[in-house]
Amino acid sequence: MRVLGVDPGLTRCGVGVVEGTAGRPLTLVGVGVVRTPADLDLSRRLLLIETGLEEWFEAHRPDAVAVERVFSQHNVRTVMGTAQASAVAMLVAARRGLPVALHTPSEVKAAISGSGRADKDQVAAMVARVLRLAEPPKPADAADAAALAICHIWRGTAQNRLAAAIAKQR
Amino acid sequence: MRVLGVDPGLTRCGVGVVEGTAGRPLTLVGVGVVRTPADLDLSRRLLLIETGLEEWFEAHRPDAVAVERVFSQHNVRTVMGTAQASAVAMLVAARRGLPVALHTPSEVKAAISGSGRADKDQVAAMVARVLRLAEPPKPADAADAAALAICHIWRGTAQNRLAAAIAKQR
Repeated sequence: MRVLGVDPGLTRCGVGVVEGTAGRPLTLVGVGVVRTPADLDLSRRLLLIETGLEEWFEAHRPDAVAVERVFSQHNVRTVMGTAQASAVAMLVAARRGLPVALHTPSEVKAAISGSGRADKDQVAAMVARVLRLAEPPKPADAADAAALAICHIWRGTAQNRLAAAIAKQR
Repeated sequence: MRVLGVDPGLTRCGVGVVEGTAGRPLTLVGVGVVRTPADLDLSRRLLLIETGLEEWFEAHRPDAVAVERVFSQHNVRTVMGTAQASAVAMLVAARRGLPVALHTPSEVKAAISGSGRADKDQVAAMVARVLRLAEPPKPADAADAAALAICHIWRGTAQNRLAAAIAKQR
């Protein structure tokens, strides 16, 4: 399974593509960020994010998409932009008929490091370890996007195993 | 000038198209809502909003777009969806190269009724009066979208007059 993770943001929108199945070594297919200039009109920034993400989807043809679930209790000024960037990511995925899953930051941290309170550096270090990289992807938004993709592969498989076990019981 | 106003929302996204210039009677070209079912996946809802708005843009070819500016201090549960629906509206407009203006609810209320604290019914009544309609457009989201378009025509013209006056002074 190839999963494209998106850490949404207006200034830097992280993208990480990871391939594999839980229980086997995962492979990093690509990682990076889509950037938009802060002085540009909001509607144009969203358009640049769309264009940038379209290129990632086109180049890597993922089977599923994992986007960070945005909460409004965080920084009030940035959260609206984050929500809007996440909408663009979901839209690009939906247009291609791809399943979109939302994972909270704590779910990602817990899946990848065993603790929902892990800090940025711990998550980045675990991303490097899981993907057998010499060092974590940079910037942090790129590492977070890869972490989202890893989380999705691991959680998805756990959910599939659970569904299979329930089906067997019947 | 033909302006398409959008009152963003996931369940009901209001759309109102108004034509004219400030100081002259304005005409309602079209008004309605794009609806999406609440039990549908968020990414699919955003896609339905995109498709629905595309139809409005295609049918009415506006010169400019006015979208309600979303604030995060409001209802925490609904504000994220509103922000995401507004992102889709801005994106559809930007893709067509149209200018997008954001107006706050108080700016719209003040422009149309003279008071930033006007209630929904007052705004709807003023929309009907300004557009010379027998009764306000329904539902409220449709009337709000028309109010946004009216506000944009009136504010835009005031801003243009100001810019012209400044240019004349020099």
